[in-house]
Amino acid sequence: MRPVYIVGIGQTPVGEQWERSLRHIAHDAILPAMRDAGVERADALYVGNMLSGELVGQEHLGALIADFVGLRGIEAYKVEAACGSGGAALRTGFMAVAGGIHDVVIVAGVEKMTDTVGRDTTAALAMAADQEYEAAEGVSFVALNALLMRRYMYEYDIPHGAFGYFAMNAHQNGVSNPNAMFRQAITLEGYRRATMIADPINLMDSSPICDGAAAIVLASEPIAQALRNGLRPVRLAASAVATDSLAVHDRRDPTWLEAAWISSRKAYDQARIGPADVDLFELHDAFTIMAALSLEASGFAERGKGVRLAEEGEITIEGRIPIATMGGLKARGHPVGATGVYQAVEATLQLRGLAGANQVHDATIAMTQNIGGSGATILTHILVGE
Amino acid sequence: MRPVYIVGIGQTPVGEQWERSLRHIAHDAILPAMRDAGVERADALYVGNMLSGELVGQEHLGALIADFVGLRGIEAYKVEAACGSGGAALRTGFMAVAGGIHDVVIVAGVEKMTDTVGRDTTAALAMAADQEYEAAEGVSFVALNALLMRRYMYEYDIPHGAFGYFAMNAHQNGVSNPNAMFRQAITLEGYRRATMIADPINLMDSSPICDGAAAIVLASEPIAQALRNGLRPVRLAASAVATDSLAVHDRRDPTWLEAAWISSRKAYDQARIGPADVDLFELHDAFTIMAALSLEASGFAERGKGVRLAEEGEITIEGRIPIATMGGLKARGHPVGATGVYQAVEATLQLRGLAGANQVHDATIAMTQNIGGSGATILTHILVGE
Repeated sequence: MRPVYIVGIGQTPVGEQWERSLRHIAHDAILPAMRDAGVERADALYVGNMLSGELVGQEHLGALIADFVGLRGIEAYKVEAACGSGGAALRTGFMAVAGGIHDVVIVAGVEKMTDTVGRDTTAALAMAADQEYEAAEGVSFVALNALLMRRYMYEYDIPHGAFGYFAMNAHQNGVSNPNAMFRQAITLEGYRRATMIADPINLMDSSPICDGAAAIVLASEPIAQALRNGLRPVRLAASAVATDSLAVHDRRDPTWLEAAWISSRKAYDQARIGPADVDLFELHDAFTIMAALSLEASGFAERGKGVRLAEEGEITIEGRIPIATMGGLKARGHPVGATGVYQAVEATLQLRGLAGANQVHDATIAMTQNIGGSGATILTHILVGE
Repeated sequence: MRPVYIVGIGQTPVGEQWERSLRHIAHDAILPAMRDAGVERADALYVGNMLSGELVGQEHLGALIADFVGLRGIEAYKVEAACGSGGAALRTGFMAVAGGIHDVVIVAGVEKMTDTVGRDTTAALAMAADQEYEAAEGVSFVALNALLMRRYMYEYDIPHGAFGYFAMNAHQNGVSNPNAMFRQAITLEGYRRATMIADPINLMDSSPICDGAAAIVLASEPIAQALRNGLRPVRLAASAVATDSLAVHDRRDPTWLEAAWISSRKAYDQARIGPADVDLFELHDAFTIMAALSLEASGFAERGKGVRLAEEGEITIEGRIPIATMGGLKARGHPVGATGVYQAVEATLQLRGLAGANQVHDATIAMTQNIGGSGATILTHILVGE
């Protein structure tokens, strides 16, 4: 396998983009990424997206977006793994460059969840869960996570309020990110008083429904060297995917993300590092419970101790393992199929030293973890600043 | 890049499988493919599917199906390029093995188009076209192909009846394929009298709505050698994807499949062959007009002469370039996201010499071409019997 470099990044602000259609939003991330890389062509475009069929009435995004950004003719298709779609597109791009198939690949994640063709977004999101054994029983995606959170609170005797430190950290980091959907800090009291969504998950435990796109240009080493622009080179040093049952009740232990354990171990092996070497971790805090479970299954906390890491301030920019450094899914926003690419864009900003007020000091190794469903597909990537 | 071998194939009968849900249908193809290959594990599963969200209310097929076939934990995700989704999944599997990422990969295509959750299948299929500039105007997918066919008939002065040879060939070949949806031969008179769907496309120009799944196990050369089972080894010698605008009216020349031209040339270069070397061509005869356009853009006929190739009997099993040798999309059926994998399964049967009454004599080189939309994504693969 060949080394793979991230040579360009682009992103749109996350929010309700009523004036832009899906193809425009994708365009608004891809063109800046190409400009950032200094490329005018690419060999292929892989698009991460979950819901365009259901919410926009449009499939076939690969060719559509390739054409719309001026790349008609190139290889292009869509990759889907529910809310892990962006990470799966990144995985596909990694394989193409690492495997010597292509030299320059664009990976884009895009989701349009507002101003849709009239379908119900909550029902659409439930397609990430098992339709026959979960969704058909009436359980929504937030309800599934509420069951997980309730179980976790019971098993480890953790009060709901303790999860607030995840939300506070995310919102604090969102303040300085111009692309974040929510840019106001919240207090623990504000967290505790937030509207209940699906007990015990309240509004401040939950990431928002929104629109957004992010894009990355990947290149082989010789191309990356030719494109050097004075910024610190960032290598995509590891890429790993693992799965679990879609239905949470089919798992031996619902509060253990087995697929995170498998994919993070694979990624650590590929990058020849361990959790202690990671300077920042962009994890999938679609709900606060998922942040805790990710930290534990990826080796940053003992079982049942993920929340304590947050309480002790270890997840902040200055902490031992900064997470959601640009606001995370909670505050930057969670345009589902785009999230995995946003994570990698933000990690690249950190490694380039361009994260502004949110800069993690001396960041050299960043990990991203994108999750499809309630832990059924987990995609882990490791980025290294050289 | 490493050589890639097809070491196992599986398929379900194509038709209306009311008693099987999507996951069961996928299972019914994947398990036979794994048995055929003699493997009990795989490194990854890539699923080609277009419409599960819209018609079944289920996304996230990668993890769902990996778990259901007993492969919980492995890398898995879905790949989508409208009716070219199966070919795109095969492309992804090819990259993974050729690039040295994985040694054993399962590629599955699955579609469930009957007994759905109540959505309109014609509207769902129109998501392959441009939603904002085609579908929003009320044009269906068959109507788009009707416009193409009408233009072609006008430009080359070809009567509708001449297209009947494509339908007759497909139905004739379907008779001996136990997995074909339609197993009765038709006459030219029967073709001409078929019910009109969207003038000039009639029922016998059109592939059917149906359910089905096909699967392939790909392996690296050392693994393929270790698995040798007495059957002739089949190498996946080329894999290429190209795109065009989704909207037909955006193309300079709507009766020329530019993406077929690009992807077939790339595939010929990779396999170091030309069209004259191809012993059989599994093309994308979703409508008879697409068969003609594919033959022309892939170098088998001059422009405007694709239909004549059919009239002259050159597309039959005994002809110069046999197409739709197991019935094609017209008679075997077109479960859209599965079709690209069915094509490769059937080509493998031919190269193994196991195509029964439909065997192409001395077949050594087979080409498959899977199309998403009205020519917007075209995936060409070349298989070589060793």
